[in-house]
Formats: sequence, C-alpha cells, structure tokens
Amino acid sequence: MGEEVKLFGAWGSPFSRRVELALKLKSVPFEYIEEDLANKSPLLIQYNPVHKKVPVLLHGSRPVIESTVILEYIDETWDGNCTILPKDPFERAMARFWVKYIDDKLFSAVWMSCWSEGEMQKNFMEQSKEYLGLLENELKGKKFFGGDTIGMVDIAANFIAFWAIVLQEVAGISLINEEKHPILCKWIEEFLSCQVVKECLPEREKLLAYFHDKKEAILDKKAPVY
Amino acid sequence: MGEEVKLFGAWGSPFSRRVELALKLKSVPFEYIEEDLANKSPLLIQYNPVHKKVPVLLHGSRPVIESTVILEYIDETWDGNCTILPKDPFERAMARFWVKYIDDKLFSAVWMSCWSEGEMQKNFMEQSKEYLGLLENELKGKKFFGGDTIGMVDIAANFIAFWAIVLQEVAGISLINEEKHPILCKWIEEFLSCQVVKECLPEREKLLAYFHDKKEAILDKKAPVY
Repeated sequence: MGEEVKLFGAWGSPFSRRVELALKLKSVPFEYIEEDLANKSPLLIQYNPVHKKVPVLLHGSRPVIESTVILEYIDETWDGNCTILPKDPFERAMARFWVKYIDDKLFSAVWMSCWSEGEMQKNFMEQSKEYLGLLENELKGKKFFGGDTIGMVDIAANFIAFWAIVLQEVAGISLINEEKHPILCKWIEEFLSCQVVKECLPEREKLLAYFHDKKEAILDKKAPVY
Repeated sequence: MGEEVKLFGAWGSPFSRRVELALKLKSVPFEYIEEDLANKSPLLIQYNPVHKKVPVLLHGSRPVIESTVILEYIDETWDGNCTILPKDPFERAMARFWVKYIDDKLFSAVWMSCWSEGEMQKNFMEQSKEYLGLLENELKGKKFFGGDTIGMVDIAANFIAFWAIVLQEVAGISLINEEKHPILCKWIEEFLSCQVVKECLPEREKLLAYFHDKKEAILDKKAPVY
C-alpha cells in the first residue's frame, strides 16, 4: 500500500472535503491538488472522463471516483486507527442507507430551498423539514451518527454541518435551528469541534462570500445551480 | 445466520428483482411477499417508513432497504457459492461506480426517453445514447460486467437487459440495438440465458401489457412517471 495518493479536489466542494476528512481520519499521507472548476485540468478529465468532476482519488495509477465510492475504497484499503464503516453487516447497511438518503434526498432539498423562490422554495423547505426531522430522529441517544466516533454518515453529513448553515444565511431562511433540531445542532457542535474536521472545511467567510456572489446569477438562472 | 429471510417486492420492479436474483445466486432460502403498490401493506410501511417502497429485505426482525444497500448486505452476510462484489478494493470501487452510474444516470435517461415526447424526448434519447455508449465500452472483452460470472453491476443492469427493451418497444423508439451496441446486446443475450436470471424476471407479455396500459396516462401526466 506504499503507492502515492493524490486527491484532486476543490476548496468549496463538500464532496472533496469528505474524501480529505476520510484520508486524515485514516492517517493516509496524500498530495492535495486544487482544481479550478471553471477551467478543469486535463488530468482531472483524464482520470474522470465520465463525470469530469472532483473528487478524484488517485492511488498509484488507479483513479477512484464518486465521493461515497472513494470513502468505501479508503476504508477497505487502509486500516489506520479508525473504521469508516462499522464491522457488522446490518450496521453497515444502515450507514449506507443514511449516506444515500443524505445524497439522494436531503442534499437537493436543502440546496434547492436556498436557491429558489416563491412557491417552489416553499415546497423545497417543506421537504427539507421532513428530511431533517428523520435525520434528527436517527441521531437520538448518539454523539455521532457513527456512535462514539465519526463514521461514514458523519463524513457524508459534512454538508449539513457546515454548507447548509452558510447557505441558509445567504438565502435568509432558517432550515436548521436549535429550536427545531436540538439533537442535530448538538451533533453539528460536536462534529465541528473535532480538530481533524476543522482542517477539512473551507473558511466560513470565504464560502459565504462565494455564495453571496453567486446568489443573483443563480436566482436569475444565469448560472447553473450546481 | 439461521434467521428467517423475507423479501417484500413487486413483480414488475427491477429493483426488487435485483434482490431476488442476489438471494438466488447466493442460494439463500427466502419467503417472497408480493406487495400491491397501489395499496401498500402496513408491514411494508412499518419496515420502510422513510421511502415506503419495495424492495425490503427482512432478516429476522431487521429490515434492510434500498436495493443496492441490500445487495451489499447479502454479499457480506452470506458466503454462498458466489461473490456479488469482487474481493479487490479497486475492483469493488469500480463495480460500485458503475452501479451508481446505472442508477443515477442511465436509468432516468432511458426511462424518460420512453415516457416523454418531442424536444424533451430527443434530449433524453441523446443522453441515453451517450450513457449506453459508456456502458458498451465498459463491457469490452468481458462476458459479464463481473468478468466470467454475474456480479453486482450485472444484477443492477437487469433494467437494461429486460425492462429497457420492453419499454423501447412500448414507446416505439430504438435506444438499444444490435447495430449500435453489439457488445451490450451480446451481454443481454448471455445474461438472459442464465436460468437463475430467467427465474427473476417478469413475464414479458405481462410487463408489455402493463406499460401499454400506463402509456397514455403517463404521457398525459395523469399518472406519476415512477
């Protein structure tokens, strides 16, 4: 396992930050390569010809793509001092289910709540409320989704802990708050206070400014939503 | 692992048929429970309160949901005489990538090509063409996506081998054909000729009649697309 590890990422992408966090949790040394998403490098396109997106994990000469696929690859390739997925098959299935739930349901509902207006926004906010409620419920009695330590669901939920909070500020709405989601907010506090998590987040002010700049163009449909 | 296994499925769902196929490949005895999707059973809603969808795999008292999550659970729980995912972490990552590609990209492009009209249909057909081309390429030099034997990608691609062929007939379009996809068509032939696969497919005429009946309502938006 002595082959070189490179991560092609983007500072503001929760998906490449997931991979960064998993590598650090596993104490895997790696070289980070920042991609300019407006002008993607030939290497990124070579390694991810299907989606042409970050993150790409390059292990030796083998590229692995899609953040959730990469997280499982990291867990199966390096022992490190932690496991990203639990050992028990049923608990593994539950973790995979919640990761899929975050990616397929929650992410787009929260994202679209922040980047839409009027009736559409109202509908997305209703959806987000329902989805966040289920996540709140899942956390009951636990410090992290992974139990006492950070696991795959916590890593995948980095978007909720950081990006969603910044986005709701930009949009001037309140999706996640202490009153409605006391357990989720406690988790956010715990998660963001971990040193290794802090190292894998963008600067708050930089992200805020980035989304503020994009807001008008996105709402006017002059820029793509993603 | 002596606990009872039950599968809540629907005859026409490629997703529950995936699980059926995996259980049979692993020689796991199970009880199949057909769900009426127009009138879901209280048990289905109890076991899958989040999505209220088939398939649900009940192992003892523990429900596992989402077909791809269930496939991994089956692979990790029962040894059987085959492995659904390869052993090597990189090959596992590649298989997971293609399964995600089929579910996130190919499925909706093919489905929507068959259930739309005019400009929208043209766009979905263009997308399907691109996505199917990549799948054709992935199969080069291989009998199955899994190599010499059926693996996770083959199981997930059951939709392409059977449902897509029926759907394109109903829609009167040609997405997958011998001329454009000789390798994919050879794979379809190989896949559909396996006895265990045949046991996990709906009757062709029944599925054809089902979609024919639905066609008008779906195109008129009188029925939901999914």
